[in-house]
This record gives sequence, structure tokens and C-alpha cells, in this order.
Amino acid sequence: MLSIDYANCLAERVGVHGIDPDALAPGSEAVEGLAALTRKLRTTRGKGWERWRDLHIDPMRSEHLGAIKPLVERLRGRFDNMVVLGIGGSALGNIALQSALNPPTHNLLPADKRSGPRMFVVDNVDPMHFGAVLDYVQAVDPKLERTLFNVISKSGETAETAAQFMVIRDLLRKHGRKGGGEGGHVVAVTDPAKGTMRQICNAEGYPTLPVPDGVGGRFSVLSPVGLFSAAMCGIDIDGLLDGAASMDEPTSREDMTTNPAAMIAFLLVELAQRKGKVNHVMMPYSNHLYLLADWFRQLWAESLGKRQSLSGEEVFAGFTPIKALGTTDQHSQVQLYREGPNDKVFCLLEVESMPDADVTIPRGLGVEAIAYLEGKSMLGLLNAEKRATEYALLESQRPNFTIRFPKIDAFHVGQFIFLWEMVTAYAGLMLNIDAYDQPAVELGKQATFGLMGRAGYEKHLRAVEAALAPTARVIKS
Amino acid sequence: MLSIDYANCLAERVGVHGIDPDALAPGSEAVEGLAALTRKLRTTRGKGWERWRDLHIDPMRSEHLGAIKPLVERLRGRFDNMVVLGIGGSALGNIALQSALNPPTHNLLPADKRSGPRMFVVDNVDPMHFGAVLDYVQAVDPKLERTLFNVISKSGETAETAAQFMVIRDLLRKHGRKGGGEGGHVVAVTDPAKGTMRQICNAEGYPTLPVPDGVGGRFSVLSPVGLFSAAMCGIDIDGLLDGAASMDEPTSREDMTTNPAAMIAFLLVELAQRKGKVNHVMMPYSNHLYLLADWFRQLWAESLGKRQSLSGEEVFAGFTPIKALGTTDQHSQVQLYREGPNDKVFCLLEVESMPDADVTIPRGLGVEAIAYLEGKSMLGLLNAEKRATEYALLESQRPNFTIRFPKIDAFHVGQFIFLWEMVTAYAGLMLNIDAYDQPAVELGKQATFGLMGRAGYEKHLRAVEAALAPTARVIKS
Repeated sequence: MLSIDYANCLAERVGVHGIDPDALAPGSEAVEGLAALTRKLRTTRGKGWERWRDLHIDPMRSEHLGAIKPLVERLRGRFDNMVVLGIGGSALGNIALQSALNPPTHNLLPADKRSGPRMFVVDNVDPMHFGAVLDYVQAVDPKLERTLFNVISKSGETAETAAQFMVIRDLLRKHGRKGGGEGGHVVAVTDPAKGTMRQICNAEGYPTLPVPDGVGGRFSVLSPVGLFSAAMCGIDIDGLLDGAASMDEPTSREDMTTNPAAMIAFLLVELAQRKGKVNHVMMPYSNHLYLLADWFRQLWAESLGKRQSLSGEEVFAGFTPIKALGTTDQHSQVQLYREGPNDKVFCLLEVESMPDADVTIPRGLGVEAIAYLEGKSMLGLLNAEKRATEYALLESQRPNFTIRFPKIDAFHVGQFIFLWEMVTAYAGLMLNIDAYDQPAVELGKQATFGLMGRAGYEKHLRAVEAALAPTARVIKS
Repeated sequence: MLSIDYANCLAERVGVHGIDPDALAPGSEAVEGLAALTRKLRTTRGKGWERWRDLHIDPMRSEHLGAIKPLVERLRGRFDNMVVLGIGGSALGNIALQSALNPPTHNLLPADKRSGPRMFVVDNVDPMHFGAVLDYVQAVDPKLERTLFNVISKSGETAETAAQFMVIRDLLRKHGRKGGGEGGHVVAVTDPAKGTMRQICNAEGYPTLPVPDGVGGRFSVLSPVGLFSAAMCGIDIDGLLDGAASMDEPTSREDMTTNPAAMIAFLLVELAQRKGKVNHVMMPYSNHLYLLADWFRQLWAESLGKRQSLSGEEVFAGFTPIKALGTTDQHSQVQLYREGPNDKVFCLLEVESMPDADVTIPRGLGVEAIAYLEGKSMLGLLNAEKRATEYALLESQRPNFTIRFPKIDAFHVGQFIFLWEMVTAYAGLMLNIDAYDQPAVELGKQATFGLMGRAGYEKHLRAVEAALAPTARVIKS
């Protein structure tokens, strides 16, 4: 099980920049308040946009696994390449799972040494990037016989994914490949009933998996959105859901001092509101866990970054999530983290053991200044650096806490995901905002439609052109 | 040439969150002040830690190219794999150049389709990550006949690089490979005269390239630190230096309204100090340019994040650099960027053309809701999204500016690098801090020594153990 060590957020350790421990005493306002939120969360479970809380239990769990596993079984061995087309919540979870649970060399390894096809998640419409991926798959698979495209879009109207999809549909046709039916090359994860992508899937006969109702993009990684591509690459998707399930009871405890989600939400909201720590740095001491921080960035930013409270006040709520990597960023960011503005809380991720992977630093070089490293474990060095950074942050009164992984596996990654989703739910209640909408994303979409000439958006085109009329405020170097 | 469009930082566009245009009028306090700083910078060029300003001119330019090119020529064709061992300034530039100027599929491509060896930059001591890279190179090159290790460390005492080096030295010996001499497998970039790595190189006979005196890690990418591995992978290192050289005169202009470095420094410092925009987001609309943002993160954080001013006051100066990727992060961060706290300035990077790489979105799907995309350019879509985001940010009064690349090549990347180094120099002067030290990094290093049992650091070990003594503030889920 993950453990959470939050001693370094308290005033005992970081002085005026920390939380008064009395706030955590039985009967305190905070403890009573969080208990009330826990009771409130009990009543909203599975309703509205909180269906994500049930992804790891039946009936959704069985439905999803029952659809994913036979499909993966049927496709097994047929593909060397899998290109995932999606963006935001339809990509970040997929990337995070793959990088957490498969080696960084996955795509480089020969077929018999990797679990499943090479995986490329193309979550942008940069033609240099997309083109390079398509060039590569066609270089190794000239007729696209052994390449699968996994299109992920609930509506099918997200411009980026729609554009990518149009390119690969055309490409498959040029190569004489089918999208759907027996021997098809497309699997879509989309709305089971309605929308543009549903309409396309019906017309083209693609096999589909559902983006479940009531599960928003950023809460969808443990649905077919994230699980299908993970299962294709040999990731233990039962383990992910077991991990999430095991985090269900702890994050429902009324006593916040034993509830990891309530505690983290309390620390982060309290430190922001009372101590000005509005930037939240997630710093894994593990390359494998690094891109979980990108998944967290979306969850945290999009859920809590809200102009209006539920009662209509203008609040400009939200915290800025920042990803960093230990030890790497000790040599890049820690100077700022210790001596710059004291406006951050650091969530450090530590891995206690790396079975079969640890490396002993060899003896024999015999150079005095670095002889202390000889014979030591590399994981020991990594974790010593983490501990040293904790200490250095404390010396500068910078609050931080640690989430400790016993090891990196599907179970603990599933725990981590569900934990942060629950932290987000608690934080949304504390901030009194709607954690499940994203109203500010619309205007940019409409402006893009206008700029791209979509009928009905002429007004938006004119607005963009007026707002961004050329000026002389340009320096041509 | 790069151009800088800063209209969206002015009050005309973002109201009270922007800069009063009078501040930029001839004779204003700001304009006069920046001109004085330009004159001051003229006097410090090439002195102390400002030797980086001369890397693109002789004699350093010729010395470095004269050492790098024959070495690269001698090694050409001998290696399939190059593993770069370094951290911080000895890695971030290397990663940025490679990802900006070679395709993302570089390591996957067959030898005849890529320029130079596969490149792995291992900038951490995560044994799962390092082990996976070493396993891979040994899988494809079982006797390490065709693998080169490029060790980058000025002192040789950075614990991470020292540990990695000890591992690969031992590995080479086990495989019967030489490090130095004819047929050797190690190239070191290190201090030309002194230090632990110099001592090792002398003993082992490794070929070396210099980390020049007076060039700090985060300013070293255009020295052999960054140029050797780039040249090995076919990157046009003359082009990089030509780009830097071409940015020299513009960033020395006394009139800040024509000096891109002075202008950017002014905007960022002024918006932070007067308008509370202390978080600086770099958001390239290009996957290739994305990791330049990591290079920028170090430059900006480590140079400006300082507790004390040069006159000894406690200032806790500095800004928090944040990397984001367009369009990808529109679906992750823009909700927060528009509706969260108005505490950021956005530096958007735009690429005007991608010769030979652009993709036309095919016609023929015929689905009404997305038909507007048919026949359009994918780069056009990418840049429309960027423009739409600019507009959406303005609607929320969020200041932003754009650095425009005519295209992505070595010349413009070199321009970008030198531009931001000069921005940093100006910003350091404006903040009255030492942009070239990193005092806060020391404590963590000493604590690591203590924890790892290095003689002489027992005091630090005791201090860490006292500060981090176990408490009951742990939640075991």
C-alpha cells in the first residue's frame, strides 16, 4: 500500500510556512469539516460526473474488462505498432500507464522482448511529429499490415483527433487496409450511443469500446480510454483496478488523519489559502513515475482552475501544477525551490524497492573523492538524494510531503490514480467549485473553428481578428 | 530571424494586467534604465562567468570546433549507440538539441535512415531507467563493440554522474573494451586542467573536450558540453553557433524596443514585480521545441532564484518556469490558465513553416461536423489553435507574447538559445542578483554525502537524521 508522510507540512518543521498541528487535533474545525465532506461525498458517488468512482467495481468493471480482454485477445500477435490518437484526457493516462509500467526502451526492443506492439501516443497536430511517426511505421511496415490505430474521442469533434483520424483513415485506404470488420486496423474508444465518432464507427464498422457516461476525460484513465492500450502492451489492467479498489475504503474514512485523500486535499488547500503556497510541484524520484505528473497536471489544473464558485462568486480558484523529476531537477530547479518565492508545496514520490532492477555501483575505480559511492546501491543513492532534498527544503522552510510506493507495479499505480482523483473531489468541495466542468476551454475551440472556416463561426473569426490585429509591437531580430 | 511579438503584454490588450505603453516610450524610465544595463553588459562580456557570451566567436569557436569535428570524424561510423552521462546543465542542452533537430523516431530508425548513433541521455540515477538503457544497448550490441559513452562533468564529483560512470567503466572492462586510446569507448567533456574527472581521464587515457573556464553548466550548451553529442548525431553545429552569433548584435542594442533580450527581460520582470505574474509558462506549439522548455527551466530557475540581492538584502527573487505544449496542453492546462489565478505570463513559440513536413488533412470522410477540416493544412490547424489560444488568453486578460520561428533548424535554435541566455543576463541585472551562482544546491549535496557515508560529512548525516526523525504523521492506506 502507498503511504503518505506529511510531517514536513507542519509548523514544527517549516515554521510559519506550515500548518498548525492543532488544526489536525480531534474535534478541530478542519477535522470536523473534512468529516462532513466525506459524508457529502458518500451521497454523490456514482451520480452525475462522479461515475468514475465506480470504475473499479461491478457492473462497470466487469463490463469493461469483459469487452477489453476478448478484443485484446483477438488482436494479440497481429500488430507490431499501435498508434493512439487522442488528446488531453484521451492521451495523458495512456502515456502515464505506459511509461510507469513498461521500460523506457519498450518501442526499441525486438518483438519477443517487449509486451505487445510498439506504442506511439500522438497527442498533437504537429505535422513534423505526426509525420515522423507515420513515416516510421510505414518504414517498418510498408503496407500497414501490422499497424493498429486506437482512436480515442468521446464526441469525435475534437479538432486535433478528428484531423489525425482523417489522415490515418485515408492512409489505410491508400494501403488497401480495412478499418473495421475482420482484419481491421482501427479500434475506437468513444461514446457508446451518440456523436460524430459514434456515427463514423457505425458507418465504418470499427470495433468500439465505451467512454462511459458520467466519466469525464481527466477521470477516464481506468476506463477503456486508458485500459485498452495498456492491455495491448501487456499491462496488468486487473492490477490497476485492484489498486484503485483498495484505495476506496481509505479515501472514504471520516477521520482525515487516516484518510490519505482528505489529508492531502486539506494540506494543499490550506497551505494555498493561508500560506500562499499556490504552486504544487509533483516530483517523482523515478523516471517511470515522471509522466504520472503530466496526468496529475491535467486533473489538478482543469478540475480546480475555476473563475466562479458554485455560489456564483468570482474566485479565480485553482493551483498551478508543476512537474519535476528527482534527482534530475535538483540540478535545475532546487536552487529556485529553496531560495525563490516560498509559494510552493512539494509532493515527492519515493519508491522503496526496485526488485531485480537495482544496480550496485562497482568497486575498483579507487578515486578518493568519489570512493564513498563504491559498493553502494544506486537506488540507495537515489533515495538518499531524495532525503537530502527533503532536508534542504526544510532548512528553507518549504513544505513538502512524500507518497511512498513499496514498488512500481500496476496495483500501486492504480492506487495512486484513484487517490489523486479522490484528492481532487475533496479539494473541489473545499473550494466550493465544480470540479467536473471546463468552461474556459470552449472559447478557444470556437475561435479555432472560426479560423479554420467552419460554417457558423464567422463571428468568432471576426472577434479573433479584431483582438489580434497586427501592431508595431514586434521586434525582428 | 526569430521575431518577438509582445503586443499582448500591454494594457491595451490585457487591461490592468498589462504594461502601460508609456513605459516603452522614448526617454521613459524603463527605456533609459535598460539602455544603462546594455552599456553595463558591454563591460562584463567575456569576464568572470560571462565567457559564455563569446562561445560563438573566435578564439573559443575555432578552438571548440577544431577539437570536436576531427574527433567526430574519427568516430564516425564506429558506433550504433551513444549514451550520454550527465545531469542538469550537462544534459538538458543535449536533450533539447537532439529533440529539436532530429526526428522523435531517431533511435528507432535503421542506421541508414538516421544521422549518427542512437542517443540516450541518462540524466538520473534511477536504476530502473539506467538499467533499461544498459540492457538495451547490450541486447543489440552484446559485446559493446559499437557503443560510445559520453561522460559530461566538469568536476567529476557530481554524485549521479560519478555513479553512472563507475557502472559503465566496469561494464566496459567486463566486456574487454578499452575506455581510452585507439578504439576506445569513452569521450569525456570535463575541466581541461583540474579536478577528479580530469584525473580519471589522464589515468585512463580518454579523449577529452573542454568545459571552458567561465562557462557555467546552464550556459554551456553551445560549448563542447552540448556540441559534441549534437555533432555525433548529425546536427549542424556551425549553424547553431551562426544563429547565436546573429543574435549578438540585436541583444546589444541600447534601444530596448529593438532589443529582443532587453524587451523580454523587461516584460517578465515588470509583469512579475508590478502585476504579480511570477510564473512564466513556456508553451511551444511544436513537439520538437518542447524540450527547449526544459533547458529554459534550468536557465531561468537556477539563475534568478536567489535569496539575497547583490547588496545583501533578503529578496527571495526568481520566477517559476513552467513548460507546456501547444495544442496538447490546451486540453490540460488552459482551463487553469484562463480561469485560475492571474499569476502567469505565457511565452508562446510558433513555427511559421515546416518545409517538407506539413500534412494536408484528406478530403472524403464527408461528416458534416468536421468537414471544415478537409483539405486544410495540419500546420495551419496547429497555428490556428495557437492564435485561438492567444485570443482566449486575452479575453481573460492574461498577458502573453510570441517568439516566432521561420522554421526549425540549427540556426534558429542557436538564436533562441543565445536570446534566452541574454534575457537571463538582463533579468539578473534588473533583479540585482548574481545570475551565475547556485548557493542553495550545496546543502543537498552535502546531505547526500552524509547519507552515503562519505568521510567528513558525518555532521550533515546527523543534521538530516535530526531534521527528519520519524513521526506519527504517516498515513498507511
